[in-house]
Amino acid sequence: MDNPFAAKDFVTLKGIKRTDLELIFETALEMEKIVEKRTRADLLHDKVLGVAFFQVSTRTRMSFESAMLRLGGGIVGFADPKTTRSGDYYSESLQDVMHMMNGYADAIVIRHPQSGAPAEAATVAEVPVINAGDGYNEHPTQAVQDVYTMLKVKGSIDGLKVALVGDQNMRVMHSLPLALAQYNTHVYFVSPKDQAMPQPWLAEFTKVGLSFEQRIDLEGILSDLDVIYLMGTKTPSYSEGRTEVMLERPQTPQPYIINREKINRAKKSIIVMHPLPRVDELPVDVDSMDAAFYFKQANNGVAVRMAILSLIFGR
Amino acid sequence: MDNPFAAKDFVTLKGIKRTDLELIFETALEMEKIVEKRTRADLLHDKVLGVAFFQVSTRTRMSFESAMLRLGGGIVGFADPKTTRSGDYYSESLQDVMHMMNGYADAIVIRHPQSGAPAEAATVAEVPVINAGDGYNEHPTQAVQDVYTMLKVKGSIDGLKVALVGDQNMRVMHSLPLALAQYNTHVYFVSPKDQAMPQPWLAEFTKVGLSFEQRIDLEGILSDLDVIYLMGTKTPSYSEGRTEVMLERPQTPQPYIINREKINRAKKSIIVMHPLPRVDELPVDVDSMDAAFYFKQANNGVAVRMAILSLIFGR
Amino acid sequence: MDNPFAAKDFVTLKGIKRTDLELIFETALEMEKIVEKRTRADLLHDKVLGVAFFQVSTRTRMSFESAMLRLGGGIVGFADPKTTRSGDYYSESLQDVMHMMNGYADAIVIRHPQSGAPAEAATVAEVPVINAGDGYNEHPTQAVQDVYTMLKVKGSIDGLKVALVGDQNMRVMHSLPLALAQYNTHVYFVSPKDQAMPQPWLAEFTKVGLSFEQRIDLEGILSDLDVIYLMGTKTPSYSEGRTEVMLERPQTPQPYIINREKINRAKKSIIVMHPLPRVDELPVDVDSMDAAFYFKQANNGVAVRMAILSLIFGR
Repeated sequence: MDNPFAAKDFVTLKGIKRTDLELIFETALEMEKIVEKRTRADLLHDKVLGVAFFQVSTRTRMSFESAMLRLGGGIVGFADPKTTRSGDYYSESLQDVMHMMNGYADAIVIRHPQSGAPAEAATVAEVPVINAGDGYNEHPTQAVQDVYTMLKVKGSIDGLKVALVGDQNMRVMHSLPLALAQYNTHVYFVSPKDQAMPQPWLAEFTKVGLSFEQRIDLEGILSDLDVIYLMGTKTPSYSEGRTEVMLERPQTPQPYIINREKINRAKKSIIVMHPLPRVDELPVDVDSMDAAFYFKQANNGVAVRMAILSLIFGR
Repeated sequence: MDNPFAAKDFVTLKGIKRTDLELIFETALEMEKIVEKRTRADLLHDKVLGVAFFQVSTRTRMSFESAMLRLGGGIVGFADPKTTRSGDYYSESLQDVMHMMNGYADAIVIRHPQSGAPAEAATVAEVPVINAGDGYNEHPTQAVQDVYTMLKVKGSIDGLKVALVGDQNMRVMHSLPLALAQYNTHVYFVSPKDQAMPQPWLAEFTKVGLSFEQRIDLEGILSDLDVIYLMGTKTPSYSEGRTEVMLERPQTPQPYIINREKINRAKKSIIVMHPLPRVDELPVDVDSMDAAFYFKQANNGVAVRMAILSLIFGR
Repeated sequence: MDNPFAAKDFVTLKGIKRTDLELIFETALEMEKIVEKRTRADLLHDKVLGVAFFQVSTRTRMSFESAMLRLGGGIVGFADPKTTRSGDYYSESLQDVMHMMNGYADAIVIRHPQSGAPAEAATVAEVPVINAGDGYNEHPTQAVQDVYTMLKVKGSIDGLKVALVGDQNMRVMHSLPLALAQYNTHVYFVSPKDQAMPQPWLAEFTKVGLSFEQRIDLEGILSDLDVIYLMGTKTPSYSEGRTEVMLERPQTPQPYIINREKINRAKKSIIVMHPLPRVDELPVDVDSMDAAFYFKQANNGVAVRMAILSLIFGR
């Protein structure tokens, strides 16, 4: 099969095709067998993956690392820029770090608080660069994993009505619609007015033919939804970097909390997804409901990232 | 041989049997050959170990990682919760982290400042959970390694008189007697009155048939001892987390310092153990004495953890 | 061939011989084939490398780790002492950490803010200890990588005129001349007077027969140079540890900035090297010049460290 990912960067879902997504999903289904057997393959035993996390991560970094290990590969890099010269006095530039890591690794996964940093890194590094989340821009591998989760649960993406609930500035909110646009879906962007989807992204979604509308709550649409994709509102600013202490955490306004009561009013088959971590927008008593798919969604990250890695390495 | 550890959690030594300990020790003796040849086996080449250190560690984390590497396995996780979403604004819950890591790793080693966290984690994770130290509760793998060290040096545990000297609130002080209770030993808990063994632990030790007594110093027993197991007094509170700067470190009171002079007054065959790190309770000029076994004790951590891992993985 | 590195520590270039360097270079040329194919060998598949970074690093740590992975080995250790008991309340001693790591790894790479720490570590650890930079003392593997870079570009070291520009207290400035002294070179130490080469190092260089002179600028020598090896001036004090915020960073004085204009006045074949990270002493518009070899220099770190590791492990 033609592999459009071989030796390429993976920094955006702009321009992604349905066939591209399908190729990843087919590969991920194969990879899932390895994950479910809890074993390791040798597919990338000869490769070293660089991980450059200029911003903290739990799921994304660990699932990439787990994916690389399950493919037999090795990992070099950092989980915290403070352990590097980027985080000290030198404030070493992204470009200089990438020139270096290009020599140390065969592909580089980068998370960065600044939008566009992975694309910038890709102009420097000769090896493939994978965007693991950049500022308020994109988080393409998360979106692929999310659509994969919908596909696994629903059997098909076509026909789905999906509500993206929460702060529409967040990067996952941008990559996911780009993927959904390749299918026959309808997407609701549900948020407070001051956290609405930014205009340039609305223009982008129109350009790729996404069917969508903006809402300030789930009023009148809840019973039609197949998927609620939830994030927090007023999440901390990425561009300010890590916020270790937040003195007064605002409570999430009621319309953006998805609790048992709302789920019980929705379709019986509805699924609730969340990229995690969560705060109060998703109470823990939802975890035991049939609709709760966010932990499965998180775990799908390994098979999907195995697929993306193996495709990028042309295996 | 029957393997009671296969696919099981390892979070406490409550309920441990002598035959269980002996199985670990026999396995560790085999593993020690690999360590001594400084080579790697392939026993767990297909497995990924998750390490979740919510509290700093040197020996325990590294010896688990070294053990996993020497068995051919891979490692994913974190040495510092600040590099994860548990350590930032989100204060992601232990449960959510475990739901996630369950998908990324085939067993999870967890250290946590809160007592009971590994047991709690084990209720969430389907994969085996190993307690690498939880608050003021237990540190079971350390205790196994400690008894293994006694066995290697003394040839037998039965008949040993062991003094546990220092703050009896510390977790190692609780796991070790649970293991020693499976043998014919006599244990002295030696500490200042305000750092005496907590009542619930005394009840626990009585329940498992441990022969023990409490003391405020070594007066009258020093010459009878076979093993001095030493820890500091007034060690920093685990529940307060990492204490980076301590303005006025109190000096250890004389009765709880084990120096050359005291060791010279003890049996010629006495051995001094310490889980490390140490402060002033164990002066460095003891290192050159024949009685000093704490570095050997630390190094035994690799073979013992290899044994525990291989047994848990049923290999 | 005789291998003088087998099972030995590698903590200083004092006493290094030309034939020793040549052996590393020949081995590195072989290793470069593995790096260039972006593959992994199995040479050290049975070994575990300990990395003990008591001071932050980007290039050195990652290139050692990449080197070990490309040789098939495993890695255990820490990139930040704050994740260990050395960085907390206990301030665990270097000796105690080394006693421990000696049991966990088959060789130990150590970076430390204190001069002489790796040599001290080597007296404790039975396994080989490799100095990855100690305070203001030495950085031997960096120097070997630097001379290797010169050799690759120039074809020969003999006859080269090399200017070491910047703060002469820095550790790279000490190891590099020790290596260059084994060849027929002439070295200029170019720095502000208050950052001149310390007298004990001048004595050391005289002892090993280095041809050198001290300068306060490049006046009168620029057109003769074959290599400019650049570092910053007034770089932060190593002994003060990591300096996360520097309120007023002084600008590098003009004589110690190497810009396009100066390079254009030098020999057409001149090469500019820098151990990185850089600040303003090396403007980024130099990167596109033919003379810029610092990224290649950084990347050579992997092959050279693979060579050093394989020689130390006697493979």
